Amino acid sequence: MDETLLMLPGPTNVAPRVLQAIAKNVVNHRSAIFGEIYTEVTKMMSELFKTQNKSYLLTGSGTAAMEASIANIVNKNDKILNVIGGKFGERLRDITLAYDGDAKELNVEWGTTVSPKQIKEALDEDENIKAITVVHNETSTGVAAPIEEIGKVVKDYNALYIVDTVSSLGGDHVDVDKYNIDICFTGSQKCLAAPPGMSAITLSEDAWKVIDSVNSNTYYLDMKKYKKFGAGTPPETPYTPSITLIYGIHEALKMIEEEGIDNRVLRHETAAEATINGAKALGLELFPKKEVSSATVTALKIPEGVSDSDLRGTMRNQYKVELAGGQDHLKGNIFRIGHMGNINYKQLAITFSALGMTLKKLGFDIDAGAGVSAVTKSYL
Amino acid sequence: MDETLLMLPGPTNVAPRVLQAIAKNVVNHRSAIFGEIYTEVTKMMSELFKTQNKSYLLTGSGTAAMEASIANIVNKNDKILNVIGGKFGERLRDITLAYDGDAKELNVEWGTTVSPKQIKEALDEDENIKAITVVHNETSTGVAAPIEEIGKVVKDYNALYIVDTVSSLGGDHVDVDKYNIDICFTGSQKCLAAPPGMSAITLSEDAWKVIDSVNSNTYYLDMKKYKKFGAGTPPETPYTPSITLIYGIHEALKMIEEEGIDNRVLRHETAAEATINGAKALGLELFPKKEVSSATVTALKIPEGVSDSDLRGTMRNQYKVELAGGQDHLKGNIFRIGHMGNINYKQLAITFSALGMTLKKLGFDIDAGAGVSAVTKSYL
Repeated sequence: MDETLLMLPGPTNVAPRVLQAIAKNVVNHRSAIFGEIYTEVTKMMSELFKTQNKSYLLTGSGTAAMEASIANIVNKNDKILNVIGGKFGERLRDITLAYDGDAKELNVEWGTTVSPKQIKEALDEDENIKAITVVHNETSTGVAAPIEEIGKVVKDYNALYIVDTVSSLGGDHVDVDKYNIDICFTGSQKCLAAPPGMSAITLSEDAWKVIDSVNSNTYYLDMKKYKKFGAGTPPETPYTPSITLIYGIHEALKMIEEEGIDNRVLRHETAAEATINGAKALGLELFPKKEVSSATVTALKIPEGVSDSDLRGTMRNQYKVELAGGQDHLKGNIFRIGHMGNINYKQLAITFSALGMTLKKLGFDIDAGAGVSAVTKSYL
Repeated sequence: MDETLLMLPGPTNVAPRVLQAIAKNVVNHRSAIFGEIYTEVTKMMSELFKTQNKSYLLTGSGTAAMEASIANIVNKNDKILNVIGGKFGERLRDITLAYDGDAKELNVEWGTTVSPKQIKEALDEDENIKAITVVHNETSTGVAAPIEEIGKVVKDYNALYIVDTVSSLGGDHVDVDKYNIDICFTGSQKCLAAPPGMSAITLSEDAWKVIDSVNSNTYYLDMKKYKKFGAGTPPETPYTPSITLIYGIHEALKMIEEEGIDNRVLRHETAAEATINGAKALGLELFPKKEVSSATVTALKIPEGVSDSDLRGTMRNQYKVELAGGQDHLKGNIFRIGHMGNINYKQLAITFSALGMTLKKLGFDIDAGAGVSAVTKSYL
């Protein structure tokens, strides 16, 4: 058992009761008993998404759900507006291109986010845009997009509104129906705090109308099959699902229900605030502007005079705290502290205690206790 | 905890030590510690496949691996010879069609299998066949195909040899290199006896040459990315994998190593023989010919005068033994007893004890103990 504390933007630390839940024996996935579990878990997912629409569980990573969101609605040369401000925005564009869609990029500088006005301009510019993709929480830069405000713009256009909430659902405000989102998806291993390996997706009536008109190459991720099998007696998945992970997600969703989603979001926001305060007290600089900094992951600049591998290596090897690095052109420039799922003052006290010692050992002229002190005061 | 005994052709009963293994906390999938686990498990998979080629783990059902085997090698209008004798042969054809391949069907009656001679004739008929798909163990009919003999034929042609061993690897003889197989894949929840949700695939040099020349729509199942990330330092998967299931597969593969694959196959063959003898003693008729009946699942005709739901419903509800029904046009005509993974005399004694009582209660004039008696004698 590796006792390293994961402070990653996924996978996150899994509660013992969730780990116990997945260690139950498997049942037949073509049986009434599975149908009951599947029905309950997908209903709980729809409640978490805050939608009247049905949800579906996919046995696959968050990227499988990203692909499902595009592959089922794109015919060749269909215009898709991909908002890009980081790696996951790029991934949705890459999937658009993989399915021969005409990807219209709306690029914003990494570390910033898009404004509803920019979205309106892009939609006004081309009336044939079939869908728009927005990453709610751009895990690669620690930036949250204003998905509620964007939703108010998009609802006046025909375009489907696709929102990636892989690293936000369960940790930040997501209200699919209120925000007019047509396709929304998430992963099991982020704010849900279940182990990785499954994703969930929900689709609106408008989305289904488009899906019914598209003949996609995808087979495993063909949502028509998920709809058909999900409406069966008993409700089923088209292919053998990850039954043990469904047990785990079930238990994780029960924990979310018990806590209440508003309490849970507040807990994440508090963790984000404490992280920013702790970092500031150690002389570290936030990568994005504070106003757009994510509730679930904080991106910080690696200070001058230290390498990523020294910083994160010391944290990992000496103090057993695992932080995330930067990705692509941000590699070596930023590091990221995930505060998702089962996060409270305890993990942040450990993390900032370790970070203070690490920076001190690496030669920085700081008060090694200032970060963890600031974290503590944040939680008071 | 549902105490029903699963006698299905997957998912199968999972050993307690495997369930314990998956209940460990997750590690960072971008870390050296994960790289070590991933390297070891993929090496063990290659050993089980009996190949010098590398293996890859896909976070997805067996169907994801089926799709990967086709999606990565088919360009539009490429001719693929799909051998079809059941539902999974059909699925490989459907995936071929989904990727705009030109599916050449070689149909054999359900309950029978293809001969190497038929394969040779089909390959002689059209020199442009790019690949041939064969299902080793057609789970829907309980029939095993002669994949070694077919391999001897295919090696004289340019066509890639794709073999689905989803429900055979770990329970029947599979020797990828000796049989000249180019692409081979399996699922976690069949003879490996781990929980469902992952699949494994191995690909030959010839397969990689074709893959490098194909521009596929698939994104999540793009094997080029798995190859690239698998060769990284540390070795990784392109997307967050099902870490807990990798723990489970690791433990399941250790169990296979401890037993020895030859012993394990013999154990499955013994279970198949006992099942056939037990069925015969209860007056039940085998659906396929005995010579082609599978080592891992036995398909039996539902006797006149009883319905599928009475038969399997009584087994399930009264005796807590879960059997599989027929699929598609075989629904209501056959039922299937899976004997995969952790199978020994105990499960078959329970199953045939229950089956004898069930048939007696449903009005059959039989000796209710004859089946379990025959099973017992088979194991002597």
